[in-house]
Amino acid sequence: MEAVAWAGDRLRILDQTLLPGEERYLDATDHHQVAEAIRSLRVRGAPLIGIAAAYGLALAARNIPADSMAAFLQALEEAARELAATRPTAVNLFWALDRLMARARACATPREAREALLAEARALHLEDVEANRRLGALGASLLPPGRAVLTHCNTGSLATGGYGTALGIVRAAWESGRLPHVYLTETRPLLQGARLTAWELAREGIPATLIVDGAAGLLMRRGLVGAVVVGADRIAANGDVANKIGTYTLAVLAREHGLPFYVAAPFSTVDLSTASGAEIPIEERAPEEVTHLAGTRTAPEGVGVWNPAFDVTPARLVTAIVTDRGVVRPPYGETLPRVAGPREAPP
Amino acid sequence: MEAVAWAGDRLRILDQTLLPGEERYLDATDHHQVAEAIRSLRVRGAPLIGIAAAYGLALAARNIPADSMAAFLQALEEAARELAATRPTAVNLFWALDRLMARARACATPREAREALLAEARALHLEDVEANRRLGALGASLLPPGRAVLTHCNTGSLATGGYGTALGIVRAAWESGRLPHVYLTETRPLLQGARLTAWELAREGIPATLIVDGAAGLLMRRGLVGAVVVGADRIAANGDVANKIGTYTLAVLAREHGLPFYVAAPFSTVDLSTASGAEIPIEERAPEEVTHLAGTRTAPEGVGVWNPAFDVTPARLVTAIVTDRGVVRPPYGETLPRVAGPREAPP
Repeated sequence: MEAVAWAGDRLRILDQTLLPGEERYLDATDHHQVAEAIRSLRVRGAPLIGIAAAYGLALAARNIPADSMAAFLQALEEAARELAATRPTAVNLFWALDRLMARARACATPREAREALLAEARALHLEDVEANRRLGALGASLLPPGRAVLTHCNTGSLATGGYGTALGIVRAAWESGRLPHVYLTETRPLLQGARLTAWELAREGIPATLIVDGAAGLLMRRGLVGAVVVGADRIAANGDVANKIGTYTLAVLAREHGLPFYVAAPFSTVDLSTASGAEIPIEERAPEEVTHLAGTRTAPEGVGVWNPAFDVTPARLVTAIVTDRGVVRPPYGETLPRVAGPREAPP
Repeated sequence: MEAVAWAGDRLRILDQTLLPGEERYLDATDHHQVAEAIRSLRVRGAPLIGIAAAYGLALAARNIPADSMAAFLQALEEAARELAATRPTAVNLFWALDRLMARARACATPREAREALLAEARALHLEDVEANRRLGALGASLLPPGRAVLTHCNTGSLATGGYGTALGIVRAAWESGRLPHVYLTETRPLLQGARLTAWELAREGIPATLIVDGAAGLLMRRGLVGAVVVGADRIAANGDVANKIGTYTLAVLAREHGLPFYVAAPFSTVDLSTASGAEIPIEERAPEEVTHLAGTRTAPEGVGVWNPAFDVTPARLVTAIVTDRGVVRPPYGETLPRVAGPREAPP
């Protein structure tokens, strides 16, 4: 099962809004379709958004008829802006587009750039799978043996190039016999836990128990989990972590119960140009995500809705950040730049 | 709007499972129908469950044909057992049934008992409304003026004899001009916040904003509320509070953000015969409440579900318990028995 796959001349995208009821694919032949799929959450998950946007830009390059490099780059920049405007919080989106634009600018001709961008998108896709496998193995070794873990939202094959970040750790720990059981939050409002993570875990045969988000406190108080593992949409230079709404609550609860709280992400999710979580824009989505369920209105007309899609967990609540470049520990303001190396220091 | 109303020879029950889409009433003429309505959550909310059960026992008394007092009481006890077996956590249910059984035993004839039980049920109903008005006024004076509050689940007219407990405080604070705004959690899985509290607040014109349960952490971190106010299903002698799943999480978050956490309940919710929260049975309900939404399956087949309906908030996280007998402060192990008085000390 692949959430996105390059199919010779188009990008096949699994429409995640229809899961688990229906497994339908859509074929994107231009970047507008890719942008729409990101905006409407047919493709979601920070790493996968970056990958899809990269393929989207490669599609744009194929569709730009310009012969002159200047005209080509101008049109390509416009396509990149359209893709970048789809969602504000996950940094992988901007990172992937920046990487492909830099690659395009290094080319001599539009023809060369068209090939180079597709190759770069495919490389970025493969690197993400490799990064997940590395961080999965690293993270698995951190988990307390024989204890269940709690995870939030979906961070598996459906959220990444493949394998998964937090769910990659779960997968690796299960494969090694270290992890007996997973608890997963349903993750309101869009139920990525109930719809997507439960579906992935069922396909893999990993024993899993679904809870409502509000039950996490009792779960920890009863001693049913030994750690919390989540993904990230953006990690600031000081270690603050933006992730799916509800993550911060789980971090506070983990601290209250003395449980380790692990954040799993490819290093591309670390954004050293963002000093702290206060600078991360938090996307607020439509009220209908909260007031309607499966097409039925559940809340009365007239009630106000506040629907932030993400929250920020302060670095002090994060036990470790598990990346493909290693397990990073506090103080993150020192360790994250060190792992990044001099090339990636902020301007 | 009345959630239950005595109608001469039957109990009219507003079917809360259909709200806010449909306002349908059912007429119960025997205690089996009342028990079914409690079990299936057509009537819910700790105080209201007690009131409905009291009317249910009054209905049973009318339907028991016995002429002898011994046979009458035996049949009445059986009806009380059926009503008591509907739900395990809310203590108001057992308290109301005990109170009516004591009243019945003090009667000389079944005929006298039939009238006495109906009068007792109506008295208990009226007392609950009065208790709510008293604790509402007391609680309103505790709220920080000009700040919004967060509430959980439904604790309004639909959960009580009328007016409400935590929502009674909200109502009183709004009426007095002290409270500008209310945030309410949707309260998964059964959405009592989104379906019922939002509906009550909209009818009253109280400005309200709905959030998913997972957004409570970010809400507090942004400084958008000045206090949390919740109801209770049972309060143990040491001040531990059983309430709707998710309450404990809100209490931990309130402490983390330095916000007062108030529990509102009529004193009948205090159970001095329960020493601590560890002794309170926590009802676990059907997986379908979590895996299905509006009749549609949202989680895949085969995933396990843990669906506790309540959790326990330890007394140390409770700033004050607002009752009709006054605002009770820690140490609850001393203050609650003192407020109860010698008559109600545990055996």
